[in-house]
Amino acid sequence: MSTIKRRPGRRPGSADTRGEILAAARKVFAEKGFDKATVRGIAREAKVDPALVHHYFDTKEGMFAAAMRLPITPDLVVSVLLDGPREELGRRLVTMMLTVTGDPETREPMIALVRSAMTHEQSRVLFREFITNALLYRVADHLGIPHLRIEAAFSQMFGVIVARHVLRLEPMASAEPEELVELLAPTIQRYLTL
Amino acid sequence: MSTIKRRPGRRPGSADTRGEILAAARKVFAEKGFDKATVRGIAREAKVDPALVHHYFDTKEGMFAAAMRLPITPDLVVSVLLDGPREELGRRLVTMMLTVTGDPETREPMIALVRSAMTHEQSRVLFREFITNALLYRVADHLGIPHLRIEAAFSQMFGVIVARHVLRLEPMASAEPEELVELLAPTIQRYLTL
Repeated sequence: MSTIKRRPGRRPGSADTRGEILAAARKVFAEKGFDKATVRGIAREAKVDPALVHHYFDTKEGMFAAAMRLPITPDLVVSVLLDGPREELGRRLVTMMLTVTGDPETREPMIALVRSAMTHEQSRVLFREFITNALLYRVADHLGIPHLRIEAAFSQMFGVIVARHVLRLEPMASAEPEELVELLAPTIQRYLTL
Repeated sequence: MSTIKRRPGRRPGSADTRGEILAAARKVFAEKGFDKATVRGIAREAKVDPALVHHYFDTKEGMFAAAMRLPITPDLVVSVLLDGPREELGRRLVTMMLTVTGDPETREPMIALVRSAMTHEQSRVLFREFITNALLYRVADHLGIPHLRIEAAFSQMFGVIVARHVLRLEPMASAEPEELVELLAPTIQRYLTL
């Protein structure tokens, strides 16, 4: 949110407030990690009322996703997983992940976060806290499966996305999503089924 | 191998020759990538006879593994995979990967290579050429399975090792190898079976 255009007729500050909150959120998340960052602390950093932060963002998870420009929120992942027959869970998750990472515009912020987490300790802690507490543990608890199983599923999809879009191994990088769904969905389905 | 000490009494060059070849190998691999690097080119860079390079290293793959301080060579992986019943292939591969990455001394050079491949384009090309041509395609061809399937297996193990030792997600990071073998071996077995 670094490019802010002032359009005539808009209330002063209104367009910038969301951007200022997100800049404050990035700073506070980087300093405190995900778990210890609070809406109140981010509001203080942005010099706005906490109610205003809540006006723009429902949850801390949503604010993190917006601050990191992530295309998907934990809420969306959970709803995609729960919305449909349980025996097609693996297929739904793999399809969603391949779709979201198929478009460079939604993929790049995710890859940036992963690269950063793999090379900077502060980013690693932030990524770990977010990915486990805000996403993986929630999904596992919804499904009633052990946390290790959701992390096995995460590892598989993480590895595929890195092999496909970062290391760009062939034939993985050019494989059709449909072919990958056939190959990967049974793995995810097994991990998410007790 | 940038620090070379000449000790008195030792035949000139003999202890250093292997180190000098490895230093030359690192330079040539970085510049040319894995595919285009040759034993002859590395010998020229090290200012030694190619026969001497062959005396120290049987194959280009072995030289690469030594140059990058990797604990396992493609030959070792292939022999572990082929040495035993085909229906326990998944178990053997997972056990080997968890053992090799369980010891920080053998793990750290592998992690260093991965980090580098994820952040530097030249290292990425080198890593990709090595991992596919020297390792994954060879294993797949031995087993008679499509290359995409070996890369699905690679992705799973890559993701687990990163989650466990780089991102350090819990409970994955502290899980016992035996528990991970139970969880992961059927996945690898399925990918490596047509």
